[in-house]
Amino acid sequence: MTKFDLEQTLLADYNRSWSRDGVSGERIAFRLGELSKIGLTAKFGVTRVGFSPLEQQAKELVMGWMREAGMTVTQDGAGNVVGRIAGKQNQSDSIASGSHVDSVPEGGHFDGPLGVIAALEVAEAWKEQGVTPNKPYEVYIFTDEEGTRFNGGLTGSRAMTGALDMETQVTLKDADGLSFEEVLTTTGKTVKGFTEAKRENLSMERFIEVHIEQGKKLEKANLAVGIVQGIAGPSWTEIIFEGKAGHAGNTPMDDRQDALTAASELFLYIEKAPAMVSTTGVATVGKVHVEPNGANVIPGKVSLITDIRDIEEQSRDQIVTNVVKKAHEIADSRNVKVAITEKMRTPPVPIGTQMTDILNRVFDDMNIEKQYLVSGAGHDAMMLGAHIPVAMIFVRSKDGVSHNPAEWTSLTDCTICAHVLKQAIEKCMEQ
Amino acid sequence: MTKFDLEQTLLADYNRSWSRDGVSGERIAFRLGELSKIGLTAKFGVTRVGFSPLEQQAKELVMGWMREAGMTVTQDGAGNVVGRIAGKQNQSDSIASGSHVDSVPEGGHFDGPLGVIAALEVAEAWKEQGVTPNKPYEVYIFTDEEGTRFNGGLTGSRAMTGALDMETQVTLKDADGLSFEEVLTTTGKTVKGFTEAKRENLSMERFIEVHIEQGKKLEKANLAVGIVQGIAGPSWTEIIFEGKAGHAGNTPMDDRQDALTAASELFLYIEKAPAMVSTTGVATVGKVHVEPNGANVIPGKVSLITDIRDIEEQSRDQIVTNVVKKAHEIADSRNVKVAITEKMRTPPVPIGTQMTDILNRVFDDMNIEKQYLVSGAGHDAMMLGAHIPVAMIFVRSKDGVSHNPAEWTSLTDCTICAHVLKQAIEKCMEQ
Repeated sequence: MTKFDLEQTLLADYNRSWSRDGVSGERIAFRLGELSKIGLTAKFGVTRVGFSPLEQQAKELVMGWMREAGMTVTQDGAGNVVGRIAGKQNQSDSIASGSHVDSVPEGGHFDGPLGVIAALEVAEAWKEQGVTPNKPYEVYIFTDEEGTRFNGGLTGSRAMTGALDMETQVTLKDADGLSFEEVLTTTGKTVKGFTEAKRENLSMERFIEVHIEQGKKLEKANLAVGIVQGIAGPSWTEIIFEGKAGHAGNTPMDDRQDALTAASELFLYIEKAPAMVSTTGVATVGKVHVEPNGANVIPGKVSLITDIRDIEEQSRDQIVTNVVKKAHEIADSRNVKVAITEKMRTPPVPIGTQMTDILNRVFDDMNIEKQYLVSGAGHDAMMLGAHIPVAMIFVRSKDGVSHNPAEWTSLTDCTICAHVLKQAIEKCMEQ
Repeated sequence: MTKFDLEQTLLADYNRSWSRDGVSGERIAFRLGELSKIGLTAKFGVTRVGFSPLEQQAKELVMGWMREAGMTVTQDGAGNVVGRIAGKQNQSDSIASGSHVDSVPEGGHFDGPLGVIAALEVAEAWKEQGVTPNKPYEVYIFTDEEGTRFNGGLTGSRAMTGALDMETQVTLKDADGLSFEEVLTTTGKTVKGFTEAKRENLSMERFIEVHIEQGKKLEKANLAVGIVQGIAGPSWTEIIFEGKAGHAGNTPMDDRQDALTAASELFLYIEKAPAMVSTTGVATVGKVHVEPNGANVIPGKVSLITDIRDIEEQSRDQIVTNVVKKAHEIADSRNVKVAITEKMRTPPVPIGTQMTDILNRVFDDMNIEKQYLVSGAGHDAMMLGAHIPVAMIFVRSKDGVSHNPAEWTSLTDCTICAHVLKQAIEKCMEQ
């Protein structure tokens, strides 16, 4: 591929028999292709971070397609986009779907966009089939799901559900030192608008999000789509070991209080900690800061953040408890201090049986083997799941790669998931 | 102590009986006190980094004292100061002593200055005693021993001995982005002058450096001074583990290539590595860089520098070899890549028996128990030791603390070491 053309590459190995019942793989390919051009990088990835003009440009492109599909389009003060078609019972709460169009820097073309385009494809298919749904149908584009700029994430869906602490939010600065408020103005938003985006009542009855798996389970099982049975809740804990900095040459090995070797014991414990408690838990140390970080100075201080997740809150919390206990044991045995601060503890979101039942029936109807998956990452559906029943459909990711230009999902898989979503939404409409 | 007065604090518990044979503890206290005022910090430490106007100011203060002691004073293009008294055999190479007057940021008042003031005290004592030495006697102040500004160190003594690679040196930038050349101009130096500071012939016969121990061995042994039997040579090796960055939530524990847990195994091995080979070796990882260093991203890359030292080159190199072997084993077992680059391998400087014999005799004459020590840190004497016989006398450090405002050596100990140095220099003059 000397020139990047996402649409043509997608179409090259598309099984065209999936373009039926109003769902068009060709339209999905065209739209993913058009979105890929907004923020396309030299490596053929995409950089379209939250609160950038490119994110707004991508939203406006989709808003145009929403209008063409006959939807009424609004954008709230947080920049969340809603495309709506009226239902026969139009006073009813909506059945909804959607995702996001922002990306991480040098990200891929499917994480987010596929969920939006698939949700929109449901409305397109109904339009082609002449269907008016029983209840209103809404397609959402949530702002800044990735949280690149302010190290947050799920910003739009948190604003809408009232889970965004605006007092903290306005104190944040991006890497260039620009405040949250200063950044908002670059895309014509305001702190007031953001605050007003909070809905007292979501006016949604159910929400289903399509998303790429970002893992290898479906690929290994040779399946296009899978049913998410729970969204793991992350817990972040900051652990600071404080020993004694000293000269690397003059301090005998038996007279050291090395904060890094203390931390290393914990890193290796954390690697084994989830398996002691659960088969679905994961634990990671991704962020480490060593002080003073000189080659010839024994580390006096090591700060780290543990990211521990599971779909069961109890087992997740047990892993955290075990890690904290181990950190104290290490500190005691090595004569260093340890300070532990909980930074975040988000409850996992279980997917209720009423929603998985619907997906089970769709999978049976379509004769697709049912593969249940755990979402280790947070998704906008997680924020809504605290208030209304939600479900997620995962789509196969090549090599499990995401947040990377190599992120890939075949058009056949994308189109199959649009069918699954359409049928699931239709079942929700009937209830 | 509401007001900092180093001189008065030193004098408060001084055993005045040591002011004899021309050596004056009071003069040593006064001079350390005067130097402490140049770059004194709010924490009563000192910040007088190499290439700062404060370093030059401290040198000029000492140059004044040198002239008062009857010395001829010169400063070479690298800023190294030489104070010289003629000897009876004035064509002979000199017997020399000295150290440095620069400090690390927020350092102490003894690391460096004590070696310069003690060396100068020998000349003062002879003046008072009416002694003219057999050979020329020189007192050196070497530029930028600590290497704070350009992450180097021993800059003046390296320039003088030709061990400073000027091609590399001119490419360095300090934390403010100023080049080596730009920084030189702030103290009236030039790259040309620095290059010309290299001596084809050191014109020194022997060199003895007095320095604080920066360790606890003398304190534990309840001794004022000790004999350095070797200066450990540091070896720096950069080790880069490269695994695969991935989402902390979506990547199962058994499908990770975590560069940080790989590095952690090595950190814990390095902690035990010296004892397998030697009783005098030390090994440290002080500098670590984790990428991408996000709390929710599995570390894809960890770069670290190992600092491994011993006074025997063979055992030092054996420790390095073992660590490199272990790094490869870890990489293989964890399916990550490892890249290993030697950054520096400085030979240890053994102190020859001709020099330790002299110190042994001085200790015997003064009835001081002989304690042999290893210098884990590099000192200017190390650079000279590649060309001429050198020796070092270490002086007791309170709590082993250095590079810290709490660094402390009693005036009694300072004065004892001046006597030891004087007698050692006198023995060198006789040979």
